[in-house]
Amino acid sequence: MSTPTRPLAIRMHADDNVAIIANDGGLPAGTVMPEGPAAGITLRDKVPQGHKVALKDIAAGAAVLRYNVPVGFAREAIAAGSWVHERLLDIPPARELQGLPMATKPAPAWPPLDGHTFEGYVNADGSVGTRNLLAITTTVQCVAGVVKIAVERIERELLPLYPNVDGVVGLEHSYGCGVAIDAPGAEIPIRTLRHISLNPNFGGEVMVVSLGCEKLQPSRLLPPGSFPIHDGRENDQGPDLVCLQDDAHVGFMSMIEGIVQSAKPHLERLNARRRQTVPASALVVGVQCGGSDAFSGVTANPAVGYMADLVVRAGGTVMFSENTEVRDAVEQLTSRAATPQVAQDVVRELGWYDQYLDRGRVDRTANTTPGNKAGGLSNIAEKAMGSIIKSGSGAIASVLAPGDKLKPDQKGLVFAATPASDFICGTLQLAAGMNVHVFTTGRGTPYGLQACPVVKVATRTDLARRWHDLMDFNAGQIADGAMTIEDAGWALFRMLLETASGKRTWAEHWKLHNALVLFNPAPIT
Amino acid sequence: MSTPTRPLAIRMHADDNVAIIANDGGLPAGTVMPEGPAAGITLRDKVPQGHKVALKDIAAGAAVLRYNVPVGFAREAIAAGSWVHERLLDIPPARELQGLPMATKPAPAWPPLDGHTFEGYVNADGSVGTRNLLAITTTVQCVAGVVKIAVERIERELLPLYPNVDGVVGLEHSYGCGVAIDAPGAEIPIRTLRHISLNPNFGGEVMVVSLGCEKLQPSRLLPPGSFPIHDGRENDQGPDLVCLQDDAHVGFMSMIEGIVQSAKPHLERLNARRRQTVPASALVVGVQCGGSDAFSGVTANPAVGYMADLVVRAGGTVMFSENTEVRDAVEQLTSRAATPQVAQDVVRELGWYDQYLDRGRVDRTANTTPGNKAGGLSNIAEKAMGSIIKSGSGAIASVLAPGDKLKPDQKGLVFAATPASDFICGTLQLAAGMNVHVFTTGRGTPYGLQACPVVKVATRTDLARRWHDLMDFNAGQIADGAMTIEDAGWALFRMLLETASGKRTWAEHWKLHNALVLFNPAPIT
Ligand SMILES: [Ca+2]
Ligand SMILES: [Ca+2]
Ligand SMILES: [Ca+2]
Ligand SMILES: [Ca+2]
Ligand SMILES: [Ca+2]
Repeated sequence: MSTPTRPLAIRMHADDNVAIIANDGGLPAGTVMPEGPAAGITLRDKVPQGHKVALKDIAAGAAVLRYNVPVGFAREAIAAGSWVHERLLDIPPARELQGLPMATKPAPAWPPLDGHTFEGYVNADGSVGTRNLLAITTTVQCVAGVVKIAVERIERELLPLYPNVDGVVGLEHSYGCGVAIDAPGAEIPIRTLRHISLNPNFGGEVMVVSLGCEKLQPSRLLPPGSFPIHDGRENDQGPDLVCLQDDAHVGFMSMIEGIVQSAKPHLERLNARRRQTVPASALVVGVQCGGSDAFSGVTANPAVGYMADLVVRAGGTVMFSENTEVRDAVEQLTSRAATPQVAQDVVRELGWYDQYLDRGRVDRTANTTPGNKAGGLSNIAEKAMGSIIKSGSGAIASVLAPGDKLKPDQKGLVFAATPASDFICGTLQLAAGMNVHVFTTGRGTPYGLQACPVVKVATRTDLARRWHDLMDFNAGQIADGAMTIEDAGWALFRMLLETASGKRTWAEHWKLHNALVLFNPAPIT
Repeated sequence: MSTPTRPLAIRMHADDNVAIIANDGGLPAGTVMPEGPAAGITLRDKVPQGHKVALKDIAAGAAVLRYNVPVGFAREAIAAGSWVHERLLDIPPARELQGLPMATKPAPAWPPLDGHTFEGYVNADGSVGTRNLLAITTTVQCVAGVVKIAVERIERELLPLYPNVDGVVGLEHSYGCGVAIDAPGAEIPIRTLRHISLNPNFGGEVMVVSLGCEKLQPSRLLPPGSFPIHDGRENDQGPDLVCLQDDAHVGFMSMIEGIVQSAKPHLERLNARRRQTVPASALVVGVQCGGSDAFSGVTANPAVGYMADLVVRAGGTVMFSENTEVRDAVEQLTSRAATPQVAQDVVRELGWYDQYLDRGRVDRTANTTPGNKAGGLSNIAEKAMGSIIKSGSGAIASVLAPGDKLKPDQKGLVFAATPASDFICGTLQLAAGMNVHVFTTGRGTPYGLQACPVVKVATRTDLARRWHDLMDFNAGQIADGAMTIEDAGWALFRMLLETASGKRTWAEHWKLHNALVLFNPAPIT
């Protein structure tokens, strides 16, 4: 790994009138750019790393172009060589959701990519797990403290007896009661919880801990027919259930014992499973970014986009998400839709989200953080252009509403509509059926999920060096000139297959993970 | 403990036309009530325990009175002896928020209650802790996984060296980024997190773990002047901070080590503290109910109300909450307000909450759970009458908005406006400065908080027997005739003082606790 020593600016498209400074620590005023898109320009200001420099004089009111897209309009005249910081830009208005190009772009004529495989756990429904985990579904947060103690006991006393089981996951959350469960939007958290319990990494085993008096009754969370039955019970008996308020439970230890005993047959069946060679088409990859900087759209996200195309070519599934980060690129999404119906589904989901934000009296500009801005991303329009690159260049085959689960035939590139919030997006992608997660970060975040391996990709070599035992891949090598986007995409694809086959990520190594966070647009009570 | 063997019905007010059946398992049709308010009535239906029986014929459209308040209007004629179940009742409309009686009820002329004390930790700001805990404040959920691992290491390696420290609490939450941080309502989660870090049980020690790029920057969470400085730093230097994205952190273990080292001086100072005898006026009691049944308003809540009056007479503070559970009793609140301004504050908070629910297209009737109804509570109007009894009979001295912190002079009975959701209410009461929590339950919930002892009160002897090592007090003795409400109130008051002095609750014994849940009425992004 090396960082550029000569002054280096990176332009994303030949028509852009800005480029970003690649050098660690930025470049001082007076620097003469020796080569590349800014060759001959003298910096008029100190320009921080990742921030934009004007490649030509930009008139007041003129568009500032990055990715050949207006990421803002100049509030005042900007001379060539100036630092184009966020305070110099007015954000373009959001594209209207009417009159969009619908499924206008032909799908790329890609050769299929055959012969790539991984070692996974084949489930009865045809999905494939990358981990072999026992999940304990909970209907309501009231039971979380009890489940936590039961999980600790299962880890301590039972897991050593079942060495093929990778772990036990208490699916704790803050939903289930004290919520307006019949309000518009309440179906989102309910189906999210239902579908998470069916994630491929849980092997089709479903056990539930309920309190008894909660609004989200087990029969509402998992109605007959919504889950597989493996243990000889009839479907209409409902899931394997421990209800804490049952008269049978006398004393706290009876509850713990009830959960531990309920876990045993599930652990038996999970432990009997073995990894099998499966084609790469069994990958269900969720991609997202968090803690983004201006390099996200230059290094990590393009590499992930290349990787996404490889997964799609191999017949697998790639979900991209983050509504507020694609909203400014909506016409790219609708034009790339495989069919007009898919384009309409994109419009439906982004329109619903516009209204959700409007009810809270904000809009898409509520995205972008202090860290984004410090990292060179002036606004959500610029962030969106760099974010959507993660989706690669394939046709969008289908759209998922928040909390929806992929159907077996929903392969290819999928827009899974979710908030951009890292944990809510990850939670919703788990519900959709993700079996491996790719997370790009510029500023750095120690993100992890318990239910699914997370491959973390750094946008800059500086971050990859400092966080050498947290970042799984350094896409900063692209900015350093040490690797092409194509090379990085292939390397990530191979890392996905290794990870899916059982190789541990850094987050798994440290047992580092965050809690599930549900998207609940309905009120609590 | 005994349960009534003879058929027993309990009426709350002489003018009520219903009473509830107290017997375990209910009473069969044909039972002739031998004595009490239903004497001579023959049950026309099987009436479950906690459910209402008609004491006289009720005409179609007539009010069904419990607590001498209409808890519904008969949908059809109801004959004396009938089971008055929820499907027979129309809920009364919510009282308008105009034209209410404002501060009309004279404050009770109570003799002060002197001479009661407990052993607490006196803080520099005059507040008193009932526990001696190190809290680690977090700005954003991104750091939660790292903080969890650091907390485990502090527990294992440091706490044995500091035996006077009761524990270390990572204040994890799902806020801080991926949220519309400038939207209307976003000040609620922000001030909640700020004020929780200042809870009396944390001894005024403030240490913060931040990511670096998050929206909720440490300077926004804890601006200068909002927190005490104990460690020789200047106030404008901000709180003692570990920022994971700092260039200084190379590798994961550097982050863990940074947090552990930061904790040491705080633990030193906490460990040097000793309990001191303080008057009962230092109690800051938060009361709430959860998993309610028809006995909640007959046994546990009236006992807690009596206890609340004792705490207020002793000069202490009692907070009651749960907006949707007091909404139907709003005129009781406004009339009991100490001043017209306090009455207006009640109207402001309940009006704001009406609008919050309305934006989500629901209303107060979204409260009440399947368990409430199974337990005999027909609707929110009936639930509210039984819920508000927890506040006792004192004048309402002041009102807190969600996330607000009590000022040192805010003693007496306080309406802390919060949702009824058990965990959100508890989290907001912690932010307000609660140092001991009283939680009543009829159906049973294994509720616990890590930051504050929770005294759990069962409404029925059956529950108290089954959950003998989870329930701290059996108010079911009132229904059994084994204890008066006054006796139970005194017993709870004494239990509060013992608990505040360090006696462990059952939840503390088992280390049973739930996560914090923030109230965030603003959108996520
Ligand atoms: Ca993102
Ligand atoms: Ca994200
Ligand atoms: Ca309640
Ligand atoms: Ca409650
Ligand atoms: Ca029973």
